[in-house]
Amino acid sequence: MPSNQQILLDNRPTGDAVASNFKLTSSQTPTLKDSEVLVRHHFLSLDPYMRGRMNDSKGYTAPQALGEVMIGGTVGEVVESRSPKFAVGDKVVGMGGWQHYSVANAEQLGALRKVDTTYVPLSHYLGAVGMPGVTAYYGLVKIIDAKAGQTVAVSAATGAVGSAFAALAKARGCRVVGIAGGPDKCKYAIDELGFDACIDYKLHDNAGSLSKAIKAECLNGIDGYFENVGGMVLDAVLPLMNAFGRIALCGMIAGYNGKPVPMTYPALILMSRLKIQGFIVSEHMEVWPEALKELGLLVGSGKLKPRESVAQGLAAAPEAFLGLLKGKNFGKQIVKLI
Amino acid sequence: MPSNQQILLDNRPTGDAVASNFKLTSSQTPTLKDSEVLVRHHFLSLDPYMRGRMNDSKGYTAPQALGEVMIGGTVGEVVESRSPKFAVGDKVVGMGGWQHYSVANAEQLGALRKVDTTYVPLSHYLGAVGMPGVTAYYGLVKIIDAKAGQTVAVSAATGAVGSAFAALAKARGCRVVGIAGGPDKCKYAIDELGFDACIDYKLHDNAGSLSKAIKAECLNGIDGYFENVGGMVLDAVLPLMNAFGRIALCGMIAGYNGKPVPMTYPALILMSRLKIQGFIVSEHMEVWPEALKELGLLVGSGKLKPRESVAQGLAAAPEAFLGLLKGKNFGKQIVKLI
Repeated sequence: MPSNQQILLDNRPTGDAVASNFKLTSSQTPTLKDSEVLVRHHFLSLDPYMRGRMNDSKGYTAPQALGEVMIGGTVGEVVESRSPKFAVGDKVVGMGGWQHYSVANAEQLGALRKVDTTYVPLSHYLGAVGMPGVTAYYGLVKIIDAKAGQTVAVSAATGAVGSAFAALAKARGCRVVGIAGGPDKCKYAIDELGFDACIDYKLHDNAGSLSKAIKAECLNGIDGYFENVGGMVLDAVLPLMNAFGRIALCGMIAGYNGKPVPMTYPALILMSRLKIQGFIVSEHMEVWPEALKELGLLVGSGKLKPRESVAQGLAAAPEAFLGLLKGKNFGKQIVKLI
Repeated sequence: MPSNQQILLDNRPTGDAVASNFKLTSSQTPTLKDSEVLVRHHFLSLDPYMRGRMNDSKGYTAPQALGEVMIGGTVGEVVESRSPKFAVGDKVVGMGGWQHYSVANAEQLGALRKVDTTYVPLSHYLGAVGMPGVTAYYGLVKIIDAKAGQTVAVSAATGAVGSAFAALAKARGCRVVGIAGGPDKCKYAIDELGFDACIDYKLHDNAGSLSKAIKAECLNGIDGYFENVGGMVLDAVLPLMNAFGRIALCGMIAGYNGKPVPMTYPALILMSRLKIQGFIVSEHMEVWPEALKELGLLVGSGKLKPRESVAQGLAAAPEAFLGLLKGKNFGKQIVKLI
């Protein structure tokens, strides 16, 4: 039984999340029962949704329990198996949490999925060819329903969701405009991710000013918008939406700390006859196969070149996560555990 | 050529609309050309959307032109015809505007529609069996997609849209909860319109208090909401929406005066995975036949008993309209012209 290091949620944030909300502990991995599999994690995924789970309030799902291992997506290798479905050495993706090892029941549908690392590096199954990629797919294809020639926009453009969104939208013949923080990210969005334009929101201190800058790159208005951020960025985009525009609402980072961030002019939803839809991709498992297939081909063929921010070692996870919430990551934030 | 009295938009409101924005004039009705029809109006419809048209700003459609007859739905009788499609004496519904007579081109699709007054009184074609009724139908059936056993709610419950909404929702086996202003309207909603409950928003001076009162009548939450008002009422309903709830956004009276009325907690759209959709029913002509058929049957069979607020004479239209914007009407606001 190998020794396991784990990060627990020790106490809930009041306001901003802080490092002392987390606690590093260690334990022995348990002896496997029939049909169980022991996975050694190579990479842990850090994602904004985790902040929502840290609150003890109504949200997508149940809050993260106190004193338990923080939830999180993981990729790794099977090191012990009591299931005929998985062999030692298999590369797998699952929800192993913030720890070095996890035990999964192979009989539980969707708990563990074998992946092929021939053309797609293992860590990308946490990003472009994983939950964030499918999130971009669902928003673009199922909510925005983007058509060739339309203009679509996305905030947090260089993140895991934003970069997959751009590749998927370009493949459909759309004009894709990003919104990101800082000149480096904006340059990267255009040079490496295929965005037609990218606006640096940090150059603007109010929605009106930001809106003008976005408008200059969206001369035909915006038909579809994928919202990862909320707040000022949403206020800036709303007046630019064309009649019958669609907004996929996936992230409201600005609201996670419990302070409500209002939408300044909701009457625009009516005036422009918009559809705004919130979603969480784990509730739409039916789209995962088609989405992962397209995303795998985009990565394998080099049309989607996802960037990663890699933190080293489990102990670095809390600081990396807090940085993610402040937009300090550049690309998909992961933690390398091996 | 009979003499025609007309009300024009004389100047645009700054802030609240006032009576002096309008101007009463008279003119001769023109000589008819081929395929034209002269209609004498019996009733003029007053509706909240007219306030939006009075502004010179982006909205549903082009603003109401200054110095022109105010736009509005009318029912009346053909008094002269140069079209084989209409005979003198036909009862018709159209968009005749704020005047006693209008000329319609019978060849223009949808300009004039013959109606049958055997079971449905003429004026109801401006309300329950007209644009407001179809508006309720579109929101309930096409956006909310209400199912038996679900709870649906509507603001401005005793208005033309709200009362049609209740009858259509009861016919589908829903629990229907209304929100209205004052004890008389709430009693009427329950006693005459078939609402299961009705909450008096005037008893509450903040969204939290109103929300608690609505919650007490929606113990299983709210699956579908039809918004005619916006502002505090929308803020009160949003936290009560069930996961995957649908909101049809049809009216934002509170925002028409140009002052933005924020949505306090838009993060709820994401947390509860809601769909919010703005619409204007004249852009969905394909649903009118099925909607009018069901609404006509509901009125003819007495299951929908629409109430009307009747102002007497064209000169009374501006004050009646301003009262409508303040919720002074009780039921569908019309003006009797004959």
